[in-house]
Amino acid sequence: MPYITLPEGLPGIRGPMAFRPETAKPLNELVEVLLRGPSTLTPGERELIATYVSSQNDCFFCQSIHGAVAAYHLGGNEKLVLDVKQNYQGAEVSGKLKALLAIAGKVQQSGKQVNKEDIERARREGATDLEIHDTVLIAAAFCMYNRYVDGLATWQPDDPEMYRARGAKTAQEGYGRTP
Amino acid sequence: MPYITLPEGLPGIRGPMAFRPETAKPLNELVEVLLRGPSTLTPGERELIATYVSSQNDCFFCQSIHGAVAAYHLGGNEKLVLDVKQNYQGAEVSGKLKALLAIAGKVQQSGKQVNKEDIERARREGATDLEIHDTVLIAAAFCMYNRYVDGLATWQPDDPEMYRARGAKTAQEGYGRTP
Repeated sequence: MPYITLPEGLPGIRGPMAFRPETAKPLNELVEVLLRGPSTLTPGERELIATYVSSQNDCFFCQSIHGAVAAYHLGGNEKLVLDVKQNYQGAEVSGKLKALLAIAGKVQQSGKQVNKEDIERARREGATDLEIHDTVLIAAAFCMYNRYVDGLATWQPDDPEMYRARGAKTAQEGYGRTP
Repeated sequence: MPYITLPEGLPGIRGPMAFRPETAKPLNELVEVLLRGPSTLTPGERELIATYVSSQNDCFFCQSIHGAVAAYHLGGNEKLVLDVKQNYQGAEVSGKLKALLAIAGKVQQSGKQVNKEDIERARREGATDLEIHDTVLIAAAFCMYNRYVDGLATWQPDDPEMYRARGAKTAQEGYGRTP
C-alpha cells in the first residue's frame, strides 16, 4: 500500500506522476533528454546505466522497467541486462561502457566517491566530456527516481510480462507520452 | 579542478548547467516547482529540507546556497539553518517540519528506509498527502543534485558572502533565470 493516496492501477513512478503532474513534467523531460536525446551513447547503453544504478539502489520497479527498455533496444537480449546488473566487468559490453558503469556505481554511493582515476580510465576507453557528464547525471537522476518510487511505497507488480510490454512501448514512444 | 571542461567562473551546479542547457532546463523547472511553486509548505520550510538533505550528503555547495536561500526566506535567521543541519529535533521549527525532516533523512539514506511510523507521525503533526509527497521528492531530488555537483568535482568557493548574495538573488528571482 502506497503511503499516500495515489491513482489506482498505475505501477511504480506512474502513480506519483499522475498524482502530481507539475513535477511529472520536468521529471519526464529530464529522463527523455538523458536516455533518448541526441547522444554518442546508444539508448541501449544509457538504459543499461539506468538499470544498473537502479539495481544497486535495489529499486525493483526501476530496474525492471528500464531493464526491459534496455533489452528492447538491445534486440531482446535480456541476458546481457542481467549480466550487467550482476557483474558488468564480465559482461559483453565495450570497455568504454564498463568504465562509465564504474563511474555510475561510484555516483550511486556518493558523488564524492568518483576520483581522477575513474575519469582517466573512461577517457582512455574513448569517453568524451559529454558522455562523462551524462553518465554522472543519469546515475544521479536514478538515485532520485529510485528514492521517489520506494520512498512512497508505490505499487510494484512482479509480472515480467507487464515490464516487457511497457518497456517495448516506452522504447518506441518515449517517456511521458501516456501516464 | 572539475573532471570535465566547464565554463569558468560559475560555482557548483551552475558550471554543468551552462555546459549542458538541455538538462539544465528540466533540472531548474523541477527545483522551481518543488521549492517555490504553490504549496502549503513555505519556501523557507522547503529550502530547509533541501539544505538538510544536502548537508547529510556532505555537499558543500548545495548546503551553502540553499542554506542561504532558506535564511533569506526566514528573515536572515542563519542560526536556525545551522540548528536544522546540526540537530533539527532541537531546532525552533514546527512539529510538522520535524516529522517531514525525519522522512527526508530516511529518503537520503534510501527510499526503502521510510516506514509507516514515519508517515503516521507526519500525519499526526498535520502533514497532508501533498506535503509528504513533496518532502519525499525534494529529498530524492537533492540526492540527485548533490551527486551531480560532487560527482563532477565542480568548483565550490568557500566565501560565505558569495552564497549570501546569490542566495538573496535566488530567493527573490527564482531558479534558472540567470546562469
